[in-house]
Amino acid sequence: MENDLLRWFRETLPSHKQLVLGAGDDAAIIQISEGKQLVATTDMLMDGVDFRVGEHDPAQIGHKALAVNLSDLAAMAARPVAALVSLCLPRRGGEELAKQLYTGLTELASYFNCAIAGGDTNSWEGPLVISVTVLGEVQAGREWRRSGARIGDQILVTGSFGGSILGKHLTFYPWNVEALWLAEHLEVHAAIDVSDGLSLDLSRLAEASGLGAAIELERVPIHPLAEFLAAQKSDGVTPLEHALSDGEDFELILAVDPSHANGFFELHPEWRRCLTPIGHFVESKGLWSVSESDLKPLVPRGYEHRLDP
Amino acid sequence: MENDLLRWFRETLPSHKQLVLGAGDDAAIIQISEGKQLVATTDMLMDGVDFRVGEHDPAQIGHKALAVNLSDLAAMAARPVAALVSLCLPRRGGEELAKQLYTGLTELASYFNCAIAGGDTNSWEGPLVISVTVLGEVQAGREWRRSGARIGDQILVTGSFGGSILGKHLTFYPWNVEALWLAEHLEVHAAIDVSDGLSLDLSRLAEASGLGAAIELERVPIHPLAEFLAAQKSDGVTPLEHALSDGEDFELILAVDPSHANGFFELHPEWRRCLTPIGHFVESKGLWSVSESDLKPLVPRGYEHRLDP
Repeated sequence: MENDLLRWFRETLPSHKQLVLGAGDDAAIIQISEGKQLVATTDMLMDGVDFRVGEHDPAQIGHKALAVNLSDLAAMAARPVAALVSLCLPRRGGEELAKQLYTGLTELASYFNCAIAGGDTNSWEGPLVISVTVLGEVQAGREWRRSGARIGDQILVTGSFGGSILGKHLTFYPWNVEALWLAEHLEVHAAIDVSDGLSLDLSRLAEASGLGAAIELERVPIHPLAEFLAAQKSDGVTPLEHALSDGEDFELILAVDPSHANGFFELHPEWRRCLTPIGHFVESKGLWSVSESDLKPLVPRGYEHRLDP
Repeated sequence: MENDLLRWFRETLPSHKQLVLGAGDDAAIIQISEGKQLVATTDMLMDGVDFRVGEHDPAQIGHKALAVNLSDLAAMAARPVAALVSLCLPRRGGEELAKQLYTGLTELASYFNCAIAGGDTNSWEGPLVISVTVLGEVQAGREWRRSGARIGDQILVTGSFGGSILGKHLTFYPWNVEALWLAEHLEVHAAIDVSDGLSLDLSRLAEASGLGAAIELERVPIHPLAEFLAAQKSDGVTPLEHALSDGEDFELILAVDPSHANGFFELHPEWRRCLTPIGHFVESKGLWSVSESDLKPLVPRGYEHRLDP
């Protein structure tokens, strides 16, 4: 659904003089002053979809609501500045819930030196909904976009993938600090954060760049929780399949020239621990798995919001 | 509820170097570059509270979701630049609903030359929720705040009040164009937009300025819909009471030195049609009605989101 509607948005929404980059990337870019660009992103989280009130710690829910937005700024190499928080609170117990949400929100905001600039607090008979908007800044032309990958670029990923639903989706710290550092030390051609699944978001980055992506499956870093989930569920879904298709990893995918990547790892060997090459970008559009230099089609899988007609 | 929680926010939320003005006004002000300030505001609207899907035209719902945010920027004399739109769509029929919402959104955005910069589109089993964030800009120090009213300032209001629930709340055009013009031609000490009711929002402006507000009740401009509503309901609530307490008028309240106001009206007599003096600010805190130069206490009334413990 998101893809169809996004396409419709792109075709329908009018352009604007100050809108450097609109719908379709991790965040929007707005020209506010010469040289400096405003980066804005928003994510809405709903009880029963993104978390469960009564089951999850409200402070962690607040943490997540901000963290998913910060992750979008990390994917653009933009520095977070301020957040706006809108709440639909269930009428019963809403005030106490709001305060607990804000405990998690403000702790994470302080960690990344991001102001909480305001918001809107409402109540209703329905379940909790949190909508967070984060504003950041980046020097003009220095942002990472989805659309800059080149043929032959290495696919680098942070961290490891899969099994986030077992708890990591509520407690993860996005890669903002590292992304700002990388933007100074590594020539990144394109980037995206993995919110809906490694294979799905990688295919989105490749599509935005007009390329295909070829994954060496044995190189995909698998999170211990993915191993645990596969063992626990014993439904035949392998840890690798979890790593490729589970949503909410909030790792980054970067496109980097292989010679730059090699030079970078020689200078900064410690980065090998949290940045893994898992393949490269190819001319043939689509997603591929590499086996003995052959490309086999791979179906992108991940989380998409479903809508019925 | 909003007042209690807002107080808690003000006491709890940490300050930030780039946050010129945080929670508690119509919008937040963020320092992005020298001289120019970013103004950010967000409002969340819910099915069954702010509109009714199935009863109201979805294009009008989209219009309203953006208009209420633009009104916050009008109240700060900030120029709208871009909007972000987050949706919780009911799964059934959600895509068609989204497109209709966007028809109203984009029409209004174009009217005010405001980009729709992106957003987040989700689906769930619950009712429609729309969260819109609008970003604008204002020269540093040129914004209108709630806190600048002075003793003796005239209370000027745009338009007329009451009965908005009969339809105006879905179709109104906020005062953005006029506010930007007024900011150039009239020395405004303080401003607020009336979202929750004239008497309630006036008392908020007065409180933020550390003053009281005295209304000459016979001067309050009553909207024809307030007359109609009073006649229709025949529950004893007068048109004036509707004008004082109905929410969602989205008119502006301005605090202006009376001699400036007089000079302004002489130069621009056409403004008498849409800008009405209804009283003045006084030293005694609280809300008052003026009758033959006596001040009688007046209870601020309006819409507040209710939360149960």
